[in-house]
Amino acid sequence: MSFTHPTVELIREAHARIRPYIHRTPVLSSRTLNEIVGSEVYFKCENFQKVGAFKARGACNAVMSLDGAAAAKGVVTHSSGNHGAALAWASRLRGIRATVVVPENAPDPKKRAIAAYGATIVYCAPTVAARESAVEKLIAEHGYTLIHPFDNEAVIAGQGTAVLELLEEHPHLDIVVSSLGGGGLLSGTAIAAHGIRSDIGVFGAEPRGADDGFRSLASGDRVREMTPDTICDGLRTVLSDRTFDVIRNHVAGIGVASDENVVKAMRLIWERLKIVVEPSACPPLAALLEDTIAARGKRVGIILSGGNLDLDRLPWAIAV
Amino acid sequence: MSFTHPTVELIREAHARIRPYIHRTPVLSSRTLNEIVGSEVYFKCENFQKVGAFKARGACNAVMSLDGAAAAKGVVTHSSGNHGAALAWASRLRGIRATVVVPENAPDPKKRAIAAYGATIVYCAPTVAARESAVEKLIAEHGYTLIHPFDNEAVIAGQGTAVLELLEEHPHLDIVVSSLGGGGLLSGTAIAAHGIRSDIGVFGAEPRGADDGFRSLASGDRVREMTPDTICDGLRTVLSDRTFDVIRNHVAGIGVASDENVVKAMRLIWERLKIVVEPSACPPLAALLEDTIAARGKRVGIILSGGNLDLDRLPWAIAV
Repeated sequence: MSFTHPTVELIREAHARIRPYIHRTPVLSSRTLNEIVGSEVYFKCENFQKVGAFKARGACNAVMSLDGAAAAKGVVTHSSGNHGAALAWASRLRGIRATVVVPENAPDPKKRAIAAYGATIVYCAPTVAARESAVEKLIAEHGYTLIHPFDNEAVIAGQGTAVLELLEEHPHLDIVVSSLGGGGLLSGTAIAAHGIRSDIGVFGAEPRGADDGFRSLASGDRVREMTPDTICDGLRTVLSDRTFDVIRNHVAGIGVASDENVVKAMRLIWERLKIVVEPSACPPLAALLEDTIAARGKRVGIILSGGNLDLDRLPWAIAV
Repeated sequence: MSFTHPTVELIREAHARIRPYIHRTPVLSSRTLNEIVGSEVYFKCENFQKVGAFKARGACNAVMSLDGAAAAKGVVTHSSGNHGAALAWASRLRGIRATVVVPENAPDPKKRAIAAYGATIVYCAPTVAARESAVEKLIAEHGYTLIHPFDNEAVIAGQGTAVLELLEEHPHLDIVVSSLGGGGLLSGTAIAAHGIRSDIGVFGAEPRGADDGFRSLASGDRVREMTPDTICDGLRTVLSDRTFDVIRNHVAGIGVASDENVVKAMRLIWERLKIVVEPSACPPLAALLEDTIAARGKRVGIILSGGNLDLDRLPWAIAV
């Protein structure tokens, strides 16, 4: 099976399109962290991005790419996470209607973030079937355009703009690593990085409790169903045919890490870089700690995906 | 009583002296935070500074200002907090000996930070008398120069360099606010700000459980002893005659805030700016939330003092 993939030119066009609306996020590093992992690591801090996550890039590119007729009708997506908030934010920027289908049991802060950007929330039962039928019904009734969280060319092109900026500032990276959930960020990152320099090693990183990407790449057969068991709430999704196809063609490997190492990586980032990142941002550093990505002695770029989490529920024990 | 105070020229010289060694820290802001407090707030992020706190500035200026003979003998201070680590760091930069007198009951992470920068730790009983006699003994035996955490002109001049950078980027601030413990940061901030623009309102902010600065300014008489009761571990100190004198002459007011509002401010900063700051950094925003500094409608600069804290002990309840 083959799809139209975005090219680095499409990603550059996406960058020109979204640049007025997004933050150019900083790149941070820490000598102590470098000593701990034995690499020279540059962190692209998408936790400082609009809506607190790289998802603003893809959603903004998709919304700003719509033709006038489609825009007039509005957009829809299903996501209780960062993509829902990002689509709400981007739609408000363009002044169009956004509807987000959210499972009834989604956490309150996520719902509030989506509502705060002015999107309509439609609740559904917490199953894939209920979600899909709710989306289909809304599309049939209102003519909304579906902006899928990752199985969408414009979204993938938008996500690829983060590594464009990173490589502008640090052109000599040996490898780049991003978290892997549905594969939107990793696909965009891989296409952009290889469009700039074909010798960069592009790696994904996942928690062991949601390692469908690793298993799909190992067997050559996309894992279609998974019961995830991980604290990385943004990475509990399987790849789509489209993202699997990009990843198969571009990615050198998938590093897998335990949740224990994800938490260790998260604490190192909080303590050493003094920034707040969510668990889903931490598998790349965790995979370096676990040596499931061979990065010793190399210059490594890591996309830190986001910084949205409930500060009342941290994944480690706290003495008050 | 009157002292030689650093002038803005001394602070500019300090900046030229330390600039090769310190970070130019970023200034962050958040529209949502601005809406919450009703001001336009610019946060100077000294949590990203070397050793994780503005203390690197003062310690670096003091150490780099020593003449060769004094430097050859080495320096000493008493501080279980950020100043101890900062002096250790600055001394290693210059290649001189540093000794830090630390109470036996100081938390392990603080001791480790000081030791990691190569300073010698000398333990004392956790009383002011024991600490002072330990320092005097070391000076008598080895001829060390005392670099006091705040009662020192070069230290105060160094701390003033943060607001120099802030006003370079945001020259039109109406007021600037810093935390107030011993008064080194506030003194340096006040002298620098007024040396640049005499119409800027300079404010300090303290927790209600360590409000000696507020009471000293109200009565005109320096409070000399206090039993602090606050989570802001960096602000449990009383002013010195020197810092009280500067503050009396330069500071428009001291905003006081409850620990509850300090925690609220800390969470807002973590959630909205996505950065890790320590409790002692948060009284300025807490005082804005509590309206004990009149800042509504104004452009406010806040120096966020640091980001060192034990992530195993956060000042709010966590469900794991």
